[in-house]
Amino acid sequence: MGVEIERKFLVRGDAWKTLATGVLLRQGYLSSHPERVVRVRIEGGAARLTIKGKSSGASRGEWEYPIPLADAQVFLDTLCERPIIEKYRYRIPCGGLTWEVDEFLGENAGLIVAEIELASEDQAFERPDWVDEEVTHDARYFNSSLLRHPYARWPTGGAGAYLDE
Amino acid sequence: MGVEIERKFLVRGDAWKTLATGVLLRQGYLSSHPERVVRVRIEGGAARLTIKGKSSGASRGEWEYPIPLADAQVFLDTLCERPIIEKYRYRIPCGGLTWEVDEFLGENAGLIVAEIELASEDQAFERPDWVDEEVTHDARYFNSSLLRHPYARWPTGGAGAYLDE
Repeated sequence: MGVEIERKFLVRGDAWKTLATGVLLRQGYLSSHPERVVRVRIEGGAARLTIKGKSSGASRGEWEYPIPLADAQVFLDTLCERPIIEKYRYRIPCGGLTWEVDEFLGENAGLIVAEIELASEDQAFERPDWVDEEVTHDARYFNSSLLRHPYARWPTGGAGAYLDE
Repeated sequence: MGVEIERKFLVRGDAWKTLATGVLLRQGYLSSHPERVVRVRIEGGAARLTIKGKSSGASRGEWEYPIPLADAQVFLDTLCERPIIEKYRYRIPCGGLTWEVDEFLGENAGLIVAEIELASEDQAFERPDWVDEEVTHDARYFNSSLLRHPYARWPTGGAGAYLDE
């Protein structure tokens, strides 16, 4: 078990795209309940199951277990909540840390977010030009929310008049 | 992954109790959704995570992964749906197969069921005297149902006038 401290930002322009190569990532949820998320993810031929507890500020209990690729494929294709999420993930080293930029596909196409994992909630970090507004606490951008309310269906296609149900 | 074929029965009398020693089993659900059950179980110092797909007759896709005991304790104590299930499990060899008899505690106290795992849905098996009525397809006896509708709260304390909501 670890405690995950992540901050999430929108992205401007496409300068970041020249800094890394995207890897296709498929993920889905056996549970998207915010107090007990169970996520299945395939990335670069490896699969894992991740369990996440309730968020508290930017911190969240997180536990990961590797699972056989074939199992993950069955889970994503037949068991997980619909739709599953597909995105390209770019890992961009910066100031001793790594930005993870996610370029979403399918019903979330058009959405690009950058995340950085920190050791503490107030840790300082370098913020490149292409990193825009912070959305860490904006529930619309939680992966579990993007299942129910994909980006393509947001009223303004962005941070506008959208209200959760 | 395996396909689980189990038949479930009520139990009469207590002759079965002299045939084995019960082991305390604690289990809870990260998801009790019938199409994607995620179960956490601790039994005899070992913990595992089990994923089950949708039932089809008495068959059901089932995948199991061992996990650290400490993780399972956190899941059961803080993450799983309430209440968790606690029961004594007795394993009773019989005619080359094994009956698993579950004696429930807590809100399901009074309920005792016997299960047998088979290689095919029509496999013959020996049926001891203490094995009573079959309840394989009776959803009230699914472990996931016993969370929401514990046995102690059934109208007749048994197979009577109870109707699911």
